[in-house]
Amino acid sequence: MRARNCKIFSLIFMFLAVSSAYAGKKKRHYKPCKEFVMYFHDNLYDGTNGANATSAIVAAPAGANLTTLAPQFHFGNIVVFDDPITLDDNFHSPPVGRAQGLYLYDDKTTFTAWLAFSFVLNSTDYQGTINFVGADPTLVAVRDISIVGGTGDFFMHRGIATVSSDAFIPPAYFRVKMDIKFYDCW
Amino acid sequence: MRARNCKIFSLIFMFLAVSSAYAGKKKRHYKPCKEFVMYFHDNLYDGTNGANATSAIVAAPAGANLTTLAPQFHFGNIVVFDDPITLDDNFHSPPVGRAQGLYLYDDKTTFTAWLAFSFVLNSTDYQGTINFVGADPTLVAVRDISIVGGTGDFFMHRGIATVSSDAFIPPAYFRVKMDIKFYDCW
Amino acid sequence: MRARNCKIFSLIFMFLAVSSAYAGKKKRHYKPCKEFVMYFHDNLYDGTNGANATSAIVAAPAGANLTTLAPQFHFGNIVVFDDPITLDDNFHSPPVGRAQGLYLYDDKTTFTAWLAFSFVLNSTDYQGTINFVGADPTLVAVRDISIVGGTGDFFMHRGIATVSSDAFIPPAYFRVKMDIKFYDCW
Repeated sequence: MRARNCKIFSLIFMFLAVSSAYAGKKKRHYKPCKEFVMYFHDNLYDGTNGANATSAIVAAPAGANLTTLAPQFHFGNIVVFDDPITLDDNFHSPPVGRAQGLYLYDDKTTFTAWLAFSFVLNSTDYQGTINFVGADPTLVAVRDISIVGGTGDFFMHRGIATVSSDAFIPPAYFRVKMDIKFYDCW
Repeated sequence: MRARNCKIFSLIFMFLAVSSAYAGKKKRHYKPCKEFVMYFHDNLYDGTNGANATSAIVAAPAGANLTTLAPQFHFGNIVVFDDPITLDDNFHSPPVGRAQGLYLYDDKTTFTAWLAFSFVLNSTDYQGTINFVGADPTLVAVRDISIVGGTGDFFMHRGIATVSSDAFIPPAYFRVKMDIKFYDCW
Repeated sequence: MRARNCKIFSLIFMFLAVSSAYAGKKKRHYKPCKEFVMYFHDNLYDGTNGANATSAIVAAPAGANLTTLAPQFHFGNIVVFDDPITLDDNFHSPPVGRAQGLYLYDDKTTFTAWLAFSFVLNSTDYQGTINFVGADPTLVAVRDISIVGGTGDFFMHRGIATVSSDAFIPPAYFRVKMDIKFYDCW
């Protein structure tokens, strides 16, 4: 009886050791704990489309102006935007919120943007904000930016947004597809 | 004796199972692990108040200038600031640090700002920085922005800051109350 | 036999209690789980060095211009940059990526910058992006900014970058040493 008990105790302790080693690790999501796709629509002010424009050039390098994107791949332009967000790619779909913040162009040799903005969502299904920061090499088919925080329904969330240029109608309209993947849902 | 032992072993294993399932989860704070209130004071440069101004318009859309906030709810203005932080709402209280970074106005139909800035704290009680990003619909009574990181006393912290406009003396002075709540204190 | 079993069971339960208490905590790194040093090189456009410049002043306060940094410690200047990153402090070393984003000067009484940018790394050893936000009091020998997210090899990473001004050749060139420390490697 004692010998058998000892064996069983050993098994228990082995299990305990494994259990406590496992327990020490955070449970990490490598598949999103929450995911959805949204689109936002940017209509840049060009000096004539004031009524419909949703964004405006507000800074430019020396020699450039505020109604035409700068030469050299728009290097140095900062654009402030307030773009409608829709659940599908139709500009006329009812907006579920606004994408608000800035983007800038920061490459003299190709089109590369940098983004810092928020999704401000206000619909039946989504209430809250999602904050994004990241590099956006716009000619690459898909690129990842960081979701650095959220509020409301997205309280303390973190994740990755996979960004793709869904449509571009020169000179002023483009549509961005955002595949929003949270890996930390709190 | 054996039967009773078996029963006890079963209990142990059940306990172990529960314990290890619990262990796999991160311990999440839904109440702040650290919280305090601070105020910062913004005094916008208007072309005449150079000595006292703590912020300046540095970008504006086409047609606007850098000493008057733009029409259409200041859409497109970017303001750089270096504002004193106090522990109470008195502008003359000894500052515990500076709020430094930028805000911009990004809505043509209402007053909505977007913030990206840091608290640089340097007092007996607080040493370190706190970094904020988020949308700030200034006409909403309280709004949440993300605390995306921190250094020093706030090493690796994350959280939410609840922002409210505490006072506004047109045209140039406003005071912001920041209820800083960390949910991840590292 | 029973008495001894009871003692052993007590020990097991004590161990369990300790184990499960420990398990409830996240395992936190106070030593970096990943660390490396990189340098980036900024060459500011001054109106004459267009071919070599990697950054440009794009916003300035009233009265200042876009080819000369503003008076009063450059308060209000926003600079957009696309700077090469190297593994050592030699400007001519092969770049492993680009530092892209913005910095601004936000103090009227000393040199203090504020940074929001990304490392876009594309080398044999590093593929992905790292996103930074933070205050940068440039006259302090070393200062910490937040790593607020990452993608690719740096998927969901967070950490601290210790920044130091490694070299400054007036008026246009400076080199920044970045000691990149991840404390959350996912």
